[in-house]
Amino acid sequence: LFVAEGIRAVDELLRSPITIRGVLVALGGADERSRILAATVQERGIPVQAVTDAEFVSAADTETPQGILAIADVPRRNLAELPIHGRSRLVVLDAVQDPGNVGTIVRTAAALGATATLTLPGTVDLWNAKVVRSSMGALFHHPAIACTWEELTSFLSDGQFPLWGADPAGEPLHAVVRGPSDVPERLAMVVGNEGAGLSSRAREGADKLVAIDIASTVESLNVAVATGIMLYELR
Amino acid sequence: LFVAEGIRAVDELLRSPITIRGVLVALGGADERSRILAATVQERGIPVQAVTDAEFVSAADTETPQGILAIADVPRRNLAELPIHGRSRLVVLDAVQDPGNVGTIVRTAAALGATATLTLPGTVDLWNAKVVRSSMGALFHHPAIACTWEELTSFLSDGQFPLWGADPAGEPLHAVVRGPSDVPERLAMVVGNEGAGLSSRAREGADKLVAIDIASTVESLNVAVATGIMLYELR
Repeated sequence: LFVAEGIRAVDELLRSPITIRGVLVALGGADERSRILAATVQERGIPVQAVTDAEFVSAADTETPQGILAIADVPRRNLAELPIHGRSRLVVLDAVQDPGNVGTIVRTAAALGATATLTLPGTVDLWNAKVVRSSMGALFHHPAIACTWEELTSFLSDGQFPLWGADPAGEPLHAVVRGPSDVPERLAMVVGNEGAGLSSRAREGADKLVAIDIASTVESLNVAVATGIMLYELR
Repeated sequence: LFVAEGIRAVDELLRSPITIRGVLVALGGADERSRILAATVQERGIPVQAVTDAEFVSAADTETPQGILAIADVPRRNLAELPIHGRSRLVVLDAVQDPGNVGTIVRTAAALGATATLTLPGTVDLWNAKVVRSSMGALFHHPAIACTWEELTSFLSDGQFPLWGADPAGEPLHAVVRGPSDVPERLAMVVGNEGAGLSSRAREGADKLVAIDIASTVESLNVAVATGIMLYELR
């Protein structure tokens, strides 16, 4: 099970194929829109439980909850069942630890048309409340799947996806992408941990390393921003 | 004055021209690296005050402080004194409210070579502890300046900067940028609030509106990711 907090998330959940087990509404703290949404949930036959504000706060993770949260089934998603047709982009997260970054990457991957986001061990749990929140609903329809390095490499090899890694020592992105023909039809891009970058396994396993040129005064880009630029440039 | 928390931020501050007034170190909670850094601070003649862990936590904003924080002067930065030579990019924030987004945008703007980041009223205070933290030190050297709409427009007009706004109703970015000659030598880009987008004043005041194409299943990109893509594409 996972928890989705706030009006927007509960609303997006309702419009997704994910099964909602139940919804909690704060008796005092819920705002008008939360109460209207709770009524819609109830009409769908989903249990709605009113709780005291103290109970609600103890269940909620956000600092300013809107007085509504849903408890839902983590969808079963399988690497083998990913629909790959023609041109395809995969985002691979190698021990990305900040839940806000992971949620933002899932949102970005969905927005920029990636087929899926795959998370390697060491990456924060995809269904962590803060990942759910910062994905802004994208996690409810974009396939995001945790897998091992072995499962990833066998999937990429079966689907003939080259793996490009984002690494400061890589070839500059602008030199790699001179025209649309420079980018393979199928491509998986791996980005690494916020502090340490790619693991040595990913760095060595990648078919190519690419870098985004940045000023020498700055150590690195935020990983979600870097993923967005790579996905856009390599679309 | 502003507060910079954690080893990395204090270390970056020390290497910047900003005046540090003093440093607090937690008596029990500071890790080894924090203690070494505090010794360096003291050698520079900057006052270091050891405080109890409870006192430290009451002064710190982060959930997992590393037992060190610095109090420093907000640098005086003036729009009129911005050094503009040749090709230049400016990032303008129109009521961007989330401090993590603003800090990440400052980091991105510095990394991708923007001359400055200008914040319009309604944008979170640039020296908020969370903005400082998420800028990863970029705020200490990249000129980030709060200004009014009138100050902005007069500066842009004097410097002959066209203003392009990021807006879903704009011309697709890939159609705007077909080659390097499609992008003006000087360019200011304005991005809007996380929920509401650009204010009507910015939308109407912009010389051109541009959009990043996204999937219909996603409402928008995160504002820091969108800024990163625009800055990279329009570099």
